[in-house]
Amino acid sequence: MVEPRPTLRAMAKAPVLTPRADDFPRWYQDLVGKAELADNGPVRGTMVVRPYGYGLWERMQQEVDARIKAAGAQNAYFPLFIPQSYLTKEAEHVEGFAPELAVVTHGGGKELEEPVVVRPTSETIVNDYFSKWVQSYRDLPLLINQWANVVRWELRPRVFLRTTEFLWQEGHTAHATYEDARDYASRIHQEVYADFLQNVLAMDVVPGRKTARERFAGAINTLTLEGMMGDGKALQLTTSHELGQNFAKAFETRYLSKDGREEYVWQTSWGSTTRMVGALVMMHGDDDGLRVPPRLAPVQVVVVAVKGDDAVLDTVRGIGDRLKTAGVRVHVDDRTDTPFGRRAVDWELKGVPVRIEVGPRDVESGTAVLVRRVTGTKEPTPIGALSEILPTVLEDDQALLLAQSRERRTDRTVEVTTVEEAAEAASTGWARIAWETLGVEGEAILAEQGVTVRCLVAADGSVPESDDQPGNIAVVARAY
Amino acid sequence: MVEPRPTLRAMAKAPVLTPRADDFPRWYQDLVGKAELADNGPVRGTMVVRPYGYGLWERMQQEVDARIKAAGAQNAYFPLFIPQSYLTKEAEHVEGFAPELAVVTHGGGKELEEPVVVRPTSETIVNDYFSKWVQSYRDLPLLINQWANVVRWELRPRVFLRTTEFLWQEGHTAHATYEDARDYASRIHQEVYADFLQNVLAMDVVPGRKTARERFAGAINTLTLEGMMGDGKALQLTTSHELGQNFAKAFETRYLSKDGREEYVWQTSWGSTTRMVGALVMMHGDDDGLRVPPRLAPVQVVVVAVKGDDAVLDTVRGIGDRLKTAGVRVHVDDRTDTPFGRRAVDWELKGVPVRIEVGPRDVESGTAVLVRRVTGTKEPTPIGALSEILPTVLEDDQALLLAQSRERRTDRTVEVTTVEEAAEAASTGWARIAWETLGVEGEAILAEQGVTVRCLVAADGSVPESDDQPGNIAVVARAY
Repeated sequence: MVEPRPTLRAMAKAPVLTPRADDFPRWYQDLVGKAELADNGPVRGTMVVRPYGYGLWERMQQEVDARIKAAGAQNAYFPLFIPQSYLTKEAEHVEGFAPELAVVTHGGGKELEEPVVVRPTSETIVNDYFSKWVQSYRDLPLLINQWANVVRWELRPRVFLRTTEFLWQEGHTAHATYEDARDYASRIHQEVYADFLQNVLAMDVVPGRKTARERFAGAINTLTLEGMMGDGKALQLTTSHELGQNFAKAFETRYLSKDGREEYVWQTSWGSTTRMVGALVMMHGDDDGLRVPPRLAPVQVVVVAVKGDDAVLDTVRGIGDRLKTAGVRVHVDDRTDTPFGRRAVDWELKGVPVRIEVGPRDVESGTAVLVRRVTGTKEPTPIGALSEILPTVLEDDQALLLAQSRERRTDRTVEVTTVEEAAEAASTGWARIAWETLGVEGEAILAEQGVTVRCLVAADGSVPESDDQPGNIAVVARAY
Repeated sequence: MVEPRPTLRAMAKAPVLTPRADDFPRWYQDLVGKAELADNGPVRGTMVVRPYGYGLWERMQQEVDARIKAAGAQNAYFPLFIPQSYLTKEAEHVEGFAPELAVVTHGGGKELEEPVVVRPTSETIVNDYFSKWVQSYRDLPLLINQWANVVRWELRPRVFLRTTEFLWQEGHTAHATYEDARDYASRIHQEVYADFLQNVLAMDVVPGRKTARERFAGAINTLTLEGMMGDGKALQLTTSHELGQNFAKAFETRYLSKDGREEYVWQTSWGSTTRMVGALVMMHGDDDGLRVPPRLAPVQVVVVAVKGDDAVLDTVRGIGDRLKTAGVRVHVDDRTDTPFGRRAVDWELKGVPVRIEVGPRDVESGTAVLVRRVTGTKEPTPIGALSEILPTVLEDDQALLLAQSRERRTDRTVEVTTVEEAAEAASTGWARIAWETLGVEGEAILAEQGVTVRCLVAADGSVPESDDQPGNIAVVARAY
C-alpha cells in the first residue's frame, strides 16, 4: 500500500513560529533561531552567525563587493585596535562614539601605557594613513574599502539588527574637491547600495538625506536608504556620508594641488552591515519562515528525495546535476533518514525559493512537485522541463517579492499635515509631512515619543541637496 | 629625434632595496614598504594591509576557501569576544595562550563584571556552541570554518610574519570517531594546504608532524607544512591539529551514538594566515622586489604605455581587452604622467609576472616588449601573438618558481648525525637528523641555541603516525 504523502499543514500541529500578528519581535527571534541563522553569543550583545545565516551574508558580500570594485574602490585592511587618543581628534566623532566603546587596558599580561579602543568605525585610523599616503593631486581620488568586524557596546542588543560586534564593509575615500567627494558618495549610494538592495535583496527602499539630528558623527551630509519592515517600522539599511574636511583637518590630510597649493582633501565614508540579514527576515519573512529572493539565495532550488528508494535518489541527483549545469544554485536533499515532513518544514523555514519534491510515484510518472516559497503554489511538473522552466520561475518570484515590498510601503504610508498626525501614523506605518511644517522643533517633539525623521526627500522623490531645500518632505516612522 | 628608451639599470642609480645578501631582514622590510604591501599600525605589532598586499591575500582567500568548501566545510562566524573563564577550561590551552591575550575591561563606559578576551583562536567558544548543536551521530561530522581576525600580543612583532592582530581562516570540526577526525585533519593538510601552497603559491614545502614540544596548546597531534625562506630559515606555513577529546571533555561536547550511548566527539582545528603574504616575499622575492606566482597574481600581466601618444594608448587598451577576453588577469598602465622608468621599477617591485611594454616604435612595428619577472628576459613579441603565447609563459614561470624553491631547499639541507652538526647546519639552512639520535634531550639543547625541530618526517617522506615511529627524521632549523 502506498502511504499518502504527508502535507505540511497536516504535519504542523502547532505553528513552527510565533505568528507575526501575535508578537512580531518574538516571531523574529523564533525565525532567526529555528532557521539556524544565528545564536546569541556568550558576551552580551554578540552573536554567532551559523552556516546558513553566514551563507546569506557571503552572497551579500559577493554582490556588494563586485559593485564596490566596479565603482573603482580597492579593498585593504586597517587594524582592529585604535589608540584612544585618535578618537578625540574629531570633536563630534568622539562625542558620538565614546559611550559605545570597548576598551582594551591589558595586553600580553601587562597594563598598557595607553588604552586602545576596539574600532567602532575606522575614520580616524584611516585618516592617519591617508595623511601619509596622499601627497599630490595625482594620488587622488583615493578609494579604499574594507570588510571587517566592528564593536559598539549595545544596551538593547537584538541579533543582526543591533549587536555589540557586527560585520560590515566600510568605504573611505579622499578627493581633491567638494564636488568630487559629493558625487562619489552619491554614486556609492545609488550604484552600489540602492542597486543591490532593490535588484538583489528585492527590497523597496526610500533614498533620502538624514536631518542634522540623525547624521553620522563627523559628517556634513548622510545619505540613507530606508526600508519598511513587516510590522510597518523603518530600518536604515545603508548610509553614505560626506565628511567634508572635518577628518582631513583633524588629521592633517593634505595634498599639493596642480597649481602648487597645500589643500585639505574632501572625504566620504559609507557602510553596509550584517544588519541586512535581519532586514531580509523582517522584510520578506512570513509565518512559515524566511523567503529568500532568488538572486541572493545561496540555495535557489532544493531537490528533495521524499523516500530513500534507489530510483528516487538517482532521479533527484540527476535533476541536481542538470540544474547545476543550467547555472542554478542547487542543493540535493537526500537525507532520507530524517522524515520528509520535517525536512520540508525546514526548507520552508530557511526560505529556499523553490523546492522540487520527488517520491516513488513521481519517478514512475516522470513528474516532480514544484513548490514555490513565495507564492506557496505546488504544481506537478515534467522532470524534463525543469531546467527550462526554473530560471523564469526564479525571476518571477524575485519580481514578486519586490512588488510585495513596494505594495506594503505604499499601503502603509500616509500623507499628514500636523505633528500629531505624524505620531499617530507612526504607530502602524510611515508618515510623510512637509519639512517646513515639521522642522527641527517638530522633529524633537516626535523624538520624545520614539518617532524619528528617517530621511528628507525632495518633492520629485530625489535626494535633496540641503535640509532646507524648498518642498522637502520628511519621512517619519518608528525605527529599529 | 626619438629618445632612446631608458633601461631599468640606467634608471636605478642606487638599489631600490637593501640587497638580500647585505641584510635579509632589512631587505624584507624595504620590500614590504616599497611594494606597498603593508605599513606598521599605530598600536605596536599591528599592521595596515595596503590594497596591493590585500589583493594578494584576497586571491589566497579565494583559493583556500574553494578548497575548504570542496572538503565539505561551511563558513560561519563566532564572536571576537570570549569570556575570560572559557580560556581556562582546557588546561594546556590556557597555559599556551594566557601570556598573549588582549583583555577588554571596559565596555559602554563601564567596567565589565567579567573581563573578556579578544580571541587568540576560537576552540573554546566554538566548543561552547558545538556542545549545543551536536545531539546525535546524525549531526556529525560537523565541519565549520571561519575567516576572521585574531589577536596575540607579540613581543617581537614583524609585519605579516608575527603581528599582534592577523587575519586567518580557522577550521573547527567534530567527528564521531578518532579515525574520522584523524583522516579529516590529514585531508585538510593535503588537499587544502599542501595543494594550495605547492600549486598556487609555487612553494616547495615539507609536510610533517610536530614534536610534543612544538604542538598546538591542547592538541594531541599537529601536522605542519614548513617552507625554506630565501635566507635558509624555516617558516611554518599552515597547521592542522587533531584535538582528540580534550576540548570535548572541557566543554561537554557529546553525542548519542547509533547504539544509544553518550560519547565525546573527536575534534580537529586548522588554520592559515596573512603570514603567507610574508612567506611569499621571503620565498620568491629577489633584490628587485617581489615575484608573484602567476596562478596567485591579482595582476598577471601589466600592459604599460611607454608614452601618452594616442596610438600607444589605443594599442595598450586593445591588448588589455584581448587578454581579458583570453582569461588573463590584466591591468593597463596608462598613467603616462608618471615617468615610464619609475612605473617599470614599481611593477618589478610588485612582482607582476609579465610586463608588456608598448612605445611609439612598437606600435609602428606591431611588436611589444614582453618582460618576464621570473626569468628577467625581454623579448620583442608580435602584438597579435600575445593572447596565444601568454598562458604558456605564465604556466612556465609558475613551474620555474616552484623548481627554484625546491632547488634551494635541496641545496641547503644537509644530513647530519650529531646535535652539534645539526646546530652548525642551521646557521645556513636545514639539517636532517635521525629522531632516535636527537630525541627530546637533543631538541632541548638545540632550543637553547634558537634552533627548533620544524617537524618529524618518516623515512619515505610521509607524515609519521607517532613521534617515536622507527626511522623518523627530525628536520631542524632556525625559524621565523
